[in-house]
Amino acid sequence: MMTLLKPLDQTLKVGIFVCPGYFLGDVVGVQTVFGCSPNTEIHLVWKTLDPIDASPRWPTMATTTFEECPDIDVLAVGLIPPDVIADPEVIAFFQQKSKSASAVIGSCGGSLMLGAAALLEGRRATASMAFVDALEDLGAIPVPGGQVVVDGKFYTAGPATGSFEAALIALAALRGEEIAKVIELGIEYDPHPPFKVGSPELAGPELTEQALGMYREAADACIAAARSAYEAYRGRPL
Amino acid sequence: MMTLLKPLDQTLKVGIFVCPGYFLGDVVGVQTVFGCSPNTEIHLVWKTLDPIDASPRWPTMATTTFEECPDIDVLAVGLIPPDVIADPEVIAFFQQKSKSASAVIGSCGGSLMLGAAALLEGRRATASMAFVDALEDLGAIPVPGGQVVVDGKFYTAGPATGSFEAALIALAALRGEEIAKVIELGIEYDPHPPFKVGSPELAGPELTEQALGMYREAADACIAAARSAYEAYRGRPL
Repeated sequence: MMTLLKPLDQTLKVGIFVCPGYFLGDVVGVQTVFGCSPNTEIHLVWKTLDPIDASPRWPTMATTTFEECPDIDVLAVGLIPPDVIADPEVIAFFQQKSKSASAVIGSCGGSLMLGAAALLEGRRATASMAFVDALEDLGAIPVPGGQVVVDGKFYTAGPATGSFEAALIALAALRGEEIAKVIELGIEYDPHPPFKVGSPELAGPELTEQALGMYREAADACIAAARSAYEAYRGRPL
Repeated sequence: MMTLLKPLDQTLKVGIFVCPGYFLGDVVGVQTVFGCSPNTEIHLVWKTLDPIDASPRWPTMATTTFEECPDIDVLAVGLIPPDVIADPEVIAFFQQKSKSASAVIGSCGGSLMLGAAALLEGRRATASMAFVDALEDLGAIPVPGGQVVVDGKFYTAGPATGSFEAALIALAALRGEEIAKVIELGIEYDPHPPFKVGSPELAGPELTEQALGMYREAADACIAAARSAYEAYRGRPL
């Protein structure tokens, strides 16, 4: 039997990164899966505890600041705006907190954030369809296909449901597969996509072009920010 | 071609119910699917705009109160605590706002809330595995199985991913299947459950008993609250 990284009698501390404009749907799986597990603390981390708004709208407040954030076992990030990805204070936070974490989860554009902080160098990683190819410019080995990619303690995934799946897989690694199965059932994670077009392969090129077109400009700005941050930080000792 | 209930040039107003202890994962699909759609407004509705906390932890603020809430096209609710389900002010809100809404979504324990407000009488409806049978005591016809159930303008679903699926199906009814497909692909809704135990049928009786046991007490309290509220309100003109 696999040794548990974090036995159930020790509190598992989960830090979820939030900021103005964070994409709620990309991190909610981490909150749901770990938050429903026994002996777990959820921390929402940002620079301040002032009210912020998500994208789409969801007024939120962090529960701890960069300075006050305890050492965490799990660090998670989803899609965030370009100015946050490139913010040196944010980069420093990810570089510092990922050192002691046992699992680092990037969902959708969250993988760009990890790459910007030079954390994915030489690692296999994925992201949403708009971002996955760009991971190569951040020193990573892009893995398309919509499945969670695990490389060491780095768990990367696509958007929305990707955060549920990455969290379930990380929970199994940290706490054992038994509890991960109970949670998968407890949240009845047995999805039935209504239109069965949730990947470029299922949807075909025309619909894929249309979907990518809806947010290409925003996506390109995130990629550009991650690239320039990575160029500034690569090769430096973390 | 089907007539759209809400043409794209008219703003679609989505009201999501929040309260102390609301289960974030049950309504985030509504926020993500509608919030990523063009010309849509998301409103978080509660009695006050004061900070509240979700369950698990997610400090949130409503964007509008019961009194200030505009007429909405979509009304959505997930699992909420028993004292809120049985609150006469909350019941009145659901009875009033559901009248003019074109789609009313209940995910997980949200179906109990709709049933408590006597909105599911004679209707086919579903909920999470812990709640679905109890819908009969609220005058509804329970439909187990984990698929979204649509009866008139009422869309009911299981927990977590249920809210994504109910929202995609409601979006198709309101705005047309074309845009619903673009959103399903845009959020890459093509899940791969890691352990494939996300329903009682997949998990078997032993694991099901274990998962239900984790939250039986809390679930029973929600059911009791919904039953007693329904008994008080059934048969009254809405």
